[in-house]
Amino acid sequence: MFLLKFITLLTDFGLQDGYPGVMKGVIWGIAPEAQIADLTHFIHPHNVLEGALVLGRAAPYFPAGTIHTAVVDPGVGTQRRPIAAWLGNFYFVGPDNGLCSVLLERAQEWGEKVQIIHLDRPRYWLPEISSVFHGRDIFAPVAAHLANGVALAELGTPLNDPVYLHLPVPQPLDHGWQGEIINIDSFGNLSTNLERKHIPEPGKVNVLIAGEKINGLVRTFGDGQPGELVAIMDSSEHLSICLVNGNASQRLQSRVGDAVVVKF
Amino acid sequence: MFLLKFITLLTDFGLQDGYPGVMKGVIWGIAPEAQIADLTHFIHPHNVLEGALVLGRAAPYFPAGTIHTAVVDPGVGTQRRPIAAWLGNFYFVGPDNGLCSVLLERAQEWGEKVQIIHLDRPRYWLPEISSVFHGRDIFAPVAAHLANGVALAELGTPLNDPVYLHLPVPQPLDHGWQGEIINIDSFGNLSTNLERKHIPEPGKVNVLIAGEKINGLVRTFGDGQPGELVAIMDSSEHLSICLVNGNASQRLQSRVGDAVVVKF
Amino acid sequence: MFLLKFITLLTDFGLQDGYPGVMKGVIWGIAPEAQIADLTHFIHPHNVLEGALVLGRAAPYFPAGTIHTAVVDPGVGTQRRPIAAWLGNFYFVGPDNGLCSVLLERAQEWGEKVQIIHLDRPRYWLPEISSVFHGRDIFAPVAAHLANGVALAELGTPLNDPVYLHLPVPQPLDHGWQGEIINIDSFGNLSTNLERKHIPEPGKVNVLIAGEKINGLVRTFGDGQPGELVAIMDSSEHLSICLVNGNASQRLQSRVGDAVVVKF
Repeated sequence: MFLLKFITLLTDFGLQDGYPGVMKGVIWGIAPEAQIADLTHFIHPHNVLEGALVLGRAAPYFPAGTIHTAVVDPGVGTQRRPIAAWLGNFYFVGPDNGLCSVLLERAQEWGEKVQIIHLDRPRYWLPEISSVFHGRDIFAPVAAHLANGVALAELGTPLNDPVYLHLPVPQPLDHGWQGEIINIDSFGNLSTNLERKHIPEPGKVNVLIAGEKINGLVRTFGDGQPGELVAIMDSSEHLSICLVNGNASQRLQSRVGDAVVVKF
Repeated sequence: MFLLKFITLLTDFGLQDGYPGVMKGVIWGIAPEAQIADLTHFIHPHNVLEGALVLGRAAPYFPAGTIHTAVVDPGVGTQRRPIAAWLGNFYFVGPDNGLCSVLLERAQEWGEKVQIIHLDRPRYWLPEISSVFHGRDIFAPVAAHLANGVALAELGTPLNDPVYLHLPVPQPLDHGWQGEIINIDSFGNLSTNLERKHIPEPGKVNVLIAGEKINGLVRTFGDGQPGELVAIMDSSEHLSICLVNGNASQRLQSRVGDAVVVKF
Repeated sequence: MFLLKFITLLTDFGLQDGYPGVMKGVIWGIAPEAQIADLTHFIHPHNVLEGALVLGRAAPYFPAGTIHTAVVDPGVGTQRRPIAAWLGNFYFVGPDNGLCSVLLERAQEWGEKVQIIHLDRPRYWLPEISSVFHGRDIFAPVAAHLANGVALAELGTPLNDPVYLHLPVPQPLDHGWQGEIINIDSFGNLSTNLERKHIPEPGKVNVLIAGEKINGLVRTFGDGQPGELVAIMDSSEHLSICLVNGNASQRLQSRVGDAVVVKF
């Protein structure tokens, strides 16, 4: 048994215009007991991959049965399908554009039960559907009905061909790996697609980025000097390049997609 | 019977300084069961009209009986009156400066019951009242007392001359209407005061803005090409000028008040 | 008896990356009944003093027993101790780096009961502890256990030498005081360390800042003209320099630490 009362929201709406608030109003109108947390509303506009990464990092920390409602939706109003899914331990509600890719691939890799539904039953939506704000008109009501205990299968038709967004995969080098920056957080820390398995001896590798060479990983920021560039395993267990008490992204003029090499 | 436990907050306080959080603390001290949603705290400082528009767009999506607490209040500490009101389906709490105009005019247009109260009974406020933060000292406590079921009329004296802020009204042209931009959202979409009634044949009108001519409205962003300027009915049923996968405000260097013409 | 269900979050994480949301997920996994309010996530990165000031201003407005969870933590992963404390009327959970200084000094000044605990019992943390995100791995779970009624003393070992951050103290002058700007809010208002006790006759003092002289304090913004620089007691009872309907910080090019003199 799960308490199906926790709902999260992740969007690229920003907080200026009141759109996330409106989604909460719609949810509470259907499921007054729902507890709603904002994951973020500052995904860069239309950046589905960034949304998938942030969602993948955050979702596992919520109680089992949490309903993660995600709306980064450049195709709103087109033929792209609205979906809801059970992904091993929690629900996803949002557009079928790869936004749940990280969660979906992980659930499949771990052999978890996965069930995906094409949301095609308007009786679980608002009465009027705009062509520009399905977060309000479709996804919020569906999340609320799930919170009320409506069965996933009741919300639409099974779907077996969800859209995947594949993350860039590190490439093997002689004595190393070439990865890349996949996310830059608001501290300017540079998170990469390199994981522990790419770094056999953390103390002995060299990390190469933007013409700089970093000798070995530190265990904590405190092991570096203020202003020093360090490599560290971040809170999602990815290799991250950081400037101690500073902003690595500004210092290195880095962008998502820039190469990061580990040499051993 | 309403569940009077939902409270929203709309302010121009921003999220840096903790002011909206303080209002939540005050509310929970009086009404521990209240569920509070932020609508936005990024109304441009002192822009009462913008606050009224965002509130007008969001409020209808909340459950009946929701208490909308709005503080865009350049006159705080002066003779401007604090008010609370029943506006047909929900409560408004805030300054009497036109911030509830959109909701109030709509309720009157639809023949809804309206009741406005001048908040003049300090026993429903915090014990000490600053002259700069009535959101904390007056409006949050009053919202909380409403959530606890205190009758609106109990909170003060009836008031019949609220301040109105009148929205700009589209002007008729030969074969068309001259409207204007009334809101620019964080995607850079340009929302106007032109509604369906001004656009008899959406596929056939021309929309003129900033020297550009747009032929006909699209139904959805997907009907345009990336980088194309389109006209569309937005999620609040106003004509909106948008750049597909881009920022129309930046492209056109538009500002609130700029003219938008519909020709048929 | 307190309702130990209110938890606040104050961090320098920003809202882009989903970190505050993750903390809510962790809290709800342990304490599903917790009600969580964001105080702010926009403390300037690593600015412990700013965090202490905002927390000191906000905490008194929350219900007794509220658990204030604060993470401005440049020393995360180092030897700096994680702590939880009872500070007279509410709990603090966060790093031992002075972040609770304002609350702690006030509780001691008022003779309130104070109890500080070194959080050294990992059974109240998440199973895996990163070296970079103790907000998620230690502080959120501890706050949740407090909300569930676990006794403070149960969470670790008593501690009597917390780190203090001392606020700058106004210096006496002939016929006046020299204070300084301690906080600039998002309106550009300049809050100082000067309090009522430094201003015997508010109508008659001169306030000197950045080469400007302000004659007397106003009681409310409405007592000044738009565009006029005024001195006023702000909502936390500190002398504040403000530009009526404008931004004093931009006008005066002020920074935290700049001198403000009161002359009488």
